[in-house]
Amino acid sequence: MDRRPVGVFDSGVGGLTVFKELEANLPHESLLYLGDTARVPYGTRSPDTVVRYSVEAAHFFRSHDVKMVVVACNTASSVALPELEREAGVPVLGVIEPGARQAVNRTRSGKIGVIGTRATVRSSAYTRAIHAVNPDLEVLARPCPLFVPLAEEGWTDNQVAKETAEIYLRPLLDAGVDTLVLGCTHYPLLKDVIGEVAGDGVALVDSAEAVSVAVREQLTTTKKLLASRDDAVPRHRFFVTDAPEPFHDAAKRFLGRSLDHLELVEIAGE
Amino acid sequence: MDRRPVGVFDSGVGGLTVFKELEANLPHESLLYLGDTARVPYGTRSPDTVVRYSVEAAHFFRSHDVKMVVVACNTASSVALPELEREAGVPVLGVIEPGARQAVNRTRSGKIGVIGTRATVRSSAYTRAIHAVNPDLEVLARPCPLFVPLAEEGWTDNQVAKETAEIYLRPLLDAGVDTLVLGCTHYPLLKDVIGEVAGDGVALVDSAEAVSVAVREQLTTTKKLLASRDDAVPRHRFFVTDAPEPFHDAAKRFLGRSLDHLELVEIAGE
Repeated sequence: MDRRPVGVFDSGVGGLTVFKELEANLPHESLLYLGDTARVPYGTRSPDTVVRYSVEAAHFFRSHDVKMVVVACNTASSVALPELEREAGVPVLGVIEPGARQAVNRTRSGKIGVIGTRATVRSSAYTRAIHAVNPDLEVLARPCPLFVPLAEEGWTDNQVAKETAEIYLRPLLDAGVDTLVLGCTHYPLLKDVIGEVAGDGVALVDSAEAVSVAVREQLTTTKKLLASRDDAVPRHRFFVTDAPEPFHDAAKRFLGRSLDHLELVEIAGE
Repeated sequence: MDRRPVGVFDSGVGGLTVFKELEANLPHESLLYLGDTARVPYGTRSPDTVVRYSVEAAHFFRSHDVKMVVVACNTASSVALPELEREAGVPVLGVIEPGARQAVNRTRSGKIGVIGTRATVRSSAYTRAIHAVNPDLEVLARPCPLFVPLAEEGWTDNQVAKETAEIYLRPLLDAGVDTLVLGCTHYPLLKDVIGEVAGDGVALVDSAEAVSVAVREQLTTTKKLLASRDDAVPRHRFFVTDAPEPFHDAAKRFLGRSLDHLELVEIAGE
């Protein structure tokens, strides 16, 4: 039994979709969320810079004595996992590999669509992860830059969201994908409208949900890492590196509630 | 006569709308553009941080011997002009005061609408600048966070852009504004659709155009600062602080052409 919290790392607020899934799948675990809001977005930074930021985050998690780190940020997941694990000194799970694996299990047509930010699509991280499992699958990736601001604006079910989804998804649907990876932490907020446009014949893979299942598996396999069911109510804490107010406002949209413990921290140079 | 270039400072690519207006209004002047793309957006940073970044930009401009600096970035214009001017050692013009002045001259109803990013609206910079000229005017400000990603995606005249503009502008129009300040460097790209939704009875104030007129006035008043009309073709150079490729792609959308001289520079710590 291990009561230490699970760390959740993201460049900003988007990782709260991962937090939400972890909370639902692991109701007895305490979670410690770090959003590097002073330096968001990571997607436009060079890999070296993202590794440096991630290492600083690893030091933060080490100093807070977490038992595992979940990397919600797609960019950090694709370039910084080895360094993060080395510096954190605990197991580290990224968001890409679980999502890719679930997509491979789901597809029947052999054509998988991946949607994400420009940076994630340009990195080909999902395509590589899918091909590592099965190189015969066809992967069609498409950036959907308006989905993040739509989610942050709370426009998740209006006409603008629907038409935007139609424009972005139509080429993938016409090409015959039967599985669609939501390859960005924000996209689960648009799941309804994406599902409506994609139709019943297309399976949606939610990376946030996929990684939370992977975390549960890993904690269960090494049973001593699970917190006991008899524990007191778990305690969740949130840390950001820039002004907390905008994060708090966005968190209400992501989680549907206020945050009890939200704190400003300095991690640069740690 | 003074052949030194005019500096144009922005946190990213949006300032190219200001560049475009300067080029049109001052066809004999060489322009030197700096986009601090490694640290965009400034709007989410603290004022102290924006001042520090701006001072580093000022040192860059000083080392490139410009005769004036135009600050295209709304955030830097609202918090860092005095420090920028002191460190640059040349006249500095921001984008807010010229736009505010033009709006005051245009309104008949006495109700001015201001649209911009969340950070610009939160700063109340335009409201303060308008009230400094005429405290009796009513200013209604509204953030339009989807306009920047729409402009960057090139969706400037489709149904999504039109419905988004309708949602954002309707409350301002219903309140009776007859003048609308485009208080963000990206918004001139959406001028057509904004004008269509706002209707003929509403005057649009383009801050990029307003500041370029102010620059021309200032260079003409102190005549020795104007480049001669007999000069060779002016030379424009562009500098960015992160990967040049995305900037170059966006520039084509903003200017309708490729850039001849685009260079990566390091300004942090200057």
